[in-house]
Amino acid sequence: MSPIVEAVPNFSEGRRPEVVQAIVAALSSVEGARVIDYSSDADHNRSVVTLVGAPAAVSEALFQGIARAAALIDMTRQQGEHPRIGATDVVPFVPIREITMAECVALARALAQRVSAELGIPTYLYYEAAARPDRQVLANIRKGEYEGLKAELEAGNPDRLPDFGPARLGSAGATVIGARPPLIAYNLYLTTGDVEIAKAIAKAVRHSTGGMRYLQAMGVLVEGRAQVSMNFLDYTRTPLHRVTELVRREAERYGVGIQSAELIGLIPEQALIDAAQWYLQLDNLTPHSILDWHLR
Amino acid sequence: MSPIVEAVPNFSEGRRPEVVQAIVAALSSVEGARVIDYSSDADHNRSVVTLVGAPAAVSEALFQGIARAAALIDMTRQQGEHPRIGATDVVPFVPIREITMAECVALARALAQRVSAELGIPTYLYYEAAARPDRQVLANIRKGEYEGLKAELEAGNPDRLPDFGPARLGSAGATVIGARPPLIAYNLYLTTGDVEIAKAIAKAVRHSTGGMRYLQAMGVLVEGRAQVSMNFLDYTRTPLHRVTELVRREAERYGVGIQSAELIGLIPEQALIDAAQWYLQLDNLTPHSILDWHLR
Repeated sequence: MSPIVEAVPNFSEGRRPEVVQAIVAALSSVEGARVIDYSSDADHNRSVVTLVGAPAAVSEALFQGIARAAALIDMTRQQGEHPRIGATDVVPFVPIREITMAECVALARALAQRVSAELGIPTYLYYEAAARPDRQVLANIRKGEYEGLKAELEAGNPDRLPDFGPARLGSAGATVIGARPPLIAYNLYLTTGDVEIAKAIAKAVRHSTGGMRYLQAMGVLVEGRAQVSMNFLDYTRTPLHRVTELVRREAERYGVGIQSAELIGLIPEQALIDAAQWYLQLDNLTPHSILDWHLR
Repeated sequence: MSPIVEAVPNFSEGRRPEVVQAIVAALSSVEGARVIDYSSDADHNRSVVTLVGAPAAVSEALFQGIARAAALIDMTRQQGEHPRIGATDVVPFVPIREITMAECVALARALAQRVSAELGIPTYLYYEAAARPDRQVLANIRKGEYEGLKAELEAGNPDRLPDFGPARLGSAGATVIGARPPLIAYNLYLTTGDVEIAKAIAKAVRHSTGGMRYLQAMGVLVEGRAQVSMNFLDYTRTPLHRVTELVRREAERYGVGIQSAELIGLIPEQALIDAAQWYLQLDNLTPHSILDWHLR
């Protein structure tokens, strides 16, 4: 087995399919790196791409994609609902197989340096790759968005200086690069149209307001149905099954149940196996118990 | 992807490790077939081996293993708790990947013919490969065990004639060969030492006494704890999660719960993913949702 890294670059373009396709083509142009999923949202004016492969190949593919996005997206004219500071807005590396988080941090730093040196784009390091504690949190780096960051850099605010590259924003803006564990986007639909119940449950279960440590959550209304929309930042420590049962219990408090669940994007298979093991109470389950493990 | 078949031969030897190892060595002697698991039980005087690989290679490896078992196990002297009629007692082929049940039936018939022709061992076809409806059920073929079958054949009972080979049993006995879906051996330990509760639950949930169609179950006492011991004959139609919850509900009826579950042998990964999907209510889960699927 050779090392496999995942990267999930976010681009500030979700309305012009030909631009998205050009960026995906650039991300697909390197032998050894493969785009396995991408989706665009017009309201957010944003696209999210998932690529996987050998670490050096993925880094090279990301560089090509970032260069293409810088050439095709003009942040001085870009508008959309989603917060953003750059054409390539954020690029997390994710360890998948035979690679450590520390190695992903090194990949993030090297790419951030190269992007600033060769493309003249200011870069910020975030999450596990952050060089300052406050930059572990993406929202802190993106505060004020493109326009606000541009103004603060022009005003010479030292607190907003990039980790690499020039202290001014061009039409490509700035790019945040880092490393994080696999993230799972998982939503629970409730048997009610009352979004206040979803909001109350989200507040009860998420980390920021006293809930589970590696969980972000918000209550939203989707096609007339209340939904608890969640990001699992580390499913090995805050697992899907425990949160699902916690949400179920909170929902019961309001006399409602869980109608269904949905994934946005991809899920590591281990997260599903962990859930099966927990619900079935299979204490002695190991990879060796799984037939398919022996076939690979 | 090339076709992969699994075979799970059962041998009537579980006390002499050197004999078991010699049989496993024979099963491992063919390029393209691989032994991935085996275990022996001294009380049952029986060993179960799991091998996987290309269909032709697995068939050849089975033939080598059957020949070795015939040379090393003398059924006229063999004793043990488990019902048996031959040195190699039963050999199911199981479709795993890129192979149909019909192809597994053809493999079973070809092997049964070869074993009888080249080794002089009478062979019976069972389950999906059965040539007569009553031989779909293994217990019907094995009725009376080695001694009883030998006597009936000597008495000329036409109902017990083998599908292939001579109508008499030598020291290697007879071998049952067939094809079946993947079988999962899954046990639930109850929070009680009262085996009568496990027996009542087994009776409630198993097919033979009115329960779930593809389920065998019995209640046993294991190290002082009541256990519902089960075989899932087709987990796609009678799944683990549904039966687990059914057993839980029956157990509640007696005021007890499920303490833990255990697997004997291997489980197809899909059975675990099915359970996770059901418990998490992930209606939209597909193989494409699973990151690892894209990495293979």
